[in-house]
Amino acid sequence: MKPRIAVTLGDPAGVGPEIVSRLCADPATRERAELVIVGQRGLLEAGAQACGLALPEVEVVEAGEEFQVTHGLPSAASGRLAGAFVERALELVQAGEAEAMATAPISKEALQMAGYPDTGHTTLLARLTNTPRPVMMLAGDKLKVVLVTIHKALREVPGLITQEGIVHTARVTDDAFRRYLGVAAPRLAVCGLNPHAGEGGLFGDEEERIIAPAVDQLREAGIDAVGPLPPDTVFWRAVRGEFDVVVCMYHDQGLIPLKLMHFEDAVNVSLGLPIIRTSVDHGTAYDLAGTGKANPASMIAAVRLAAQMAGSA
Amino acid sequence: MKPRIAVTLGDPAGVGPEIVSRLCADPATRERAELVIVGQRGLLEAGAQACGLALPEVEVVEAGEEFQVTHGLPSAASGRLAGAFVERALELVQAGEAEAMATAPISKEALQMAGYPDTGHTTLLARLTNTPRPVMMLAGDKLKVVLVTIHKALREVPGLITQEGIVHTARVTDDAFRRYLGVAAPRLAVCGLNPHAGEGGLFGDEEERIIAPAVDQLREAGIDAVGPLPPDTVFWRAVRGEFDVVVCMYHDQGLIPLKLMHFEDAVNVSLGLPIIRTSVDHGTAYDLAGTGKANPASMIAAVRLAAQMAGSA
Repeated sequence: MKPRIAVTLGDPAGVGPEIVSRLCADPATRERAELVIVGQRGLLEAGAQACGLALPEVEVVEAGEEFQVTHGLPSAASGRLAGAFVERALELVQAGEAEAMATAPISKEALQMAGYPDTGHTTLLARLTNTPRPVMMLAGDKLKVVLVTIHKALREVPGLITQEGIVHTARVTDDAFRRYLGVAAPRLAVCGLNPHAGEGGLFGDEEERIIAPAVDQLREAGIDAVGPLPPDTVFWRAVRGEFDVVVCMYHDQGLIPLKLMHFEDAVNVSLGLPIIRTSVDHGTAYDLAGTGKANPASMIAAVRLAAQMAGSA
Repeated sequence: MKPRIAVTLGDPAGVGPEIVSRLCADPATRERAELVIVGQRGLLEAGAQACGLALPEVEVVEAGEEFQVTHGLPSAASGRLAGAFVERALELVQAGEAEAMATAPISKEALQMAGYPDTGHTTLLARLTNTPRPVMMLAGDKLKVVLVTIHKALREVPGLITQEGIVHTARVTDDAFRRYLGVAAPRLAVCGLNPHAGEGGLFGDEEERIIAPAVDQLREAGIDAVGPLPPDTVFWRAVRGEFDVVVCMYHDQGLIPLKLMHFEDAVNVSLGLPIIRTSVDHGTAYDLAGTGKANPASMIAAVRLAAQMAGSA
């Protein structure tokens, strides 16, 4: 049985309806997943039309009020719809009518215009599922990274790195790899914060004070974590197969190598939620909306990864 | 005429003599450069022997006192020799007897045991040539990066980023690309410091306060600098050919993508010196010394790049 994946249309003023229509037209994806599009058939058909596609047969679960699209323009109405699609998709998964959800891009701005208190999918889903601290993974075939801190000024990062935060991130990651990615004994690389992982305290002491004790705590808990490792070589080692995932201290430490390896097909995965949820790793691309030019690679990869995770669960 | 390149043997207790002997045995390199090995023939021959090579005919300029090698052990004697080789190679270039120098790895520890006040090649050469602030470039075929700050704790980096430092780094880089790399109008990407280059001040203000004004100043001076750009996508853009070089704010920002693309064949280039100098991008690898197993790819790339730069000069 193919897993049923609930796929949201995203912000209707963005590229979501277009990349989802391309997804529906991708035979290799449809072999692996039974798609349930959550949104509005009219929006999906308009997306297909923008791409010059005849929309193939596909199940659509309707959600939200009717909407007159103005491409590229975030509005309270587009934000309300984007939010409604996510809420409906979550209900389907929680009700067992789908096994995982994969989300098209939404706009933080539109979401907030619509009155949502959330900054994006992850905080929205965390709130709706009462998950205090989900972990963000960015995943490609060759490299997977998780982040201990995310959207923080670099200046604040050293003060935000805690032993508890690293242990939490690594534990959630380890659990997800065992549970959903078919890895019986996940190998986690834990990055240092400083050049050469501090070179014995010469360039910073966070490795000795915080990161090494976190790695010790993880190993005592039976998790195969190694580190703190020099950040400038660990990703190469991971790409070569030495580690399943790299635990990164800050956004660009993980995103620079991830986007270098997987610019077009990276997937954003929320770990630690009570459901399986993947997402495209890009925004609404308002400037491309309506042109049919948006690349669906990340959307397709998100659905395939969701199907793989649902199949392993 | 092939350019004459002075190649030092590096710390004799490290892998230098081995990788230089492999270099001498590489026909493609010898087609592009006339090698002048600066060190001791006995050490070079021992290096070849460790690699199972018959050392091909090659010019050796002798320097330093005789030395009984203990592989893997930094000592005052090995540091004195490593320093003497660099000094002699510099003399050759300054006297016009070689057109550039390429250096094998030395040990900071051994150098300091020998009484040198320097932390490595770059500071040693800067001192000997009275260059106040050389710029470090790490270079591969696909990606080249220069660093505004180098071996600093991440916590200190935001306070060390100055408009003047960015402008200096970019100017020296621009000049070197015009002068030595045959690029008439170098395209420089200037990284932001923070995720998404600060996202309009949401995650840090160094972009607005420091980096954007530096880019403006560079553009007014006729340098094709663009930025501050989001760090997580700029390297992919550079690899695709959009920029010649990326100006990075800190060590791992540049070294993570560089080593991912060029783990084995990256070259370290000191820009801003009055001479052309390239180096391997790895250390003495004391643990491999004497085994013949060290990979000569970076040494070979360093000599080829030196020859290319000398040929363009």
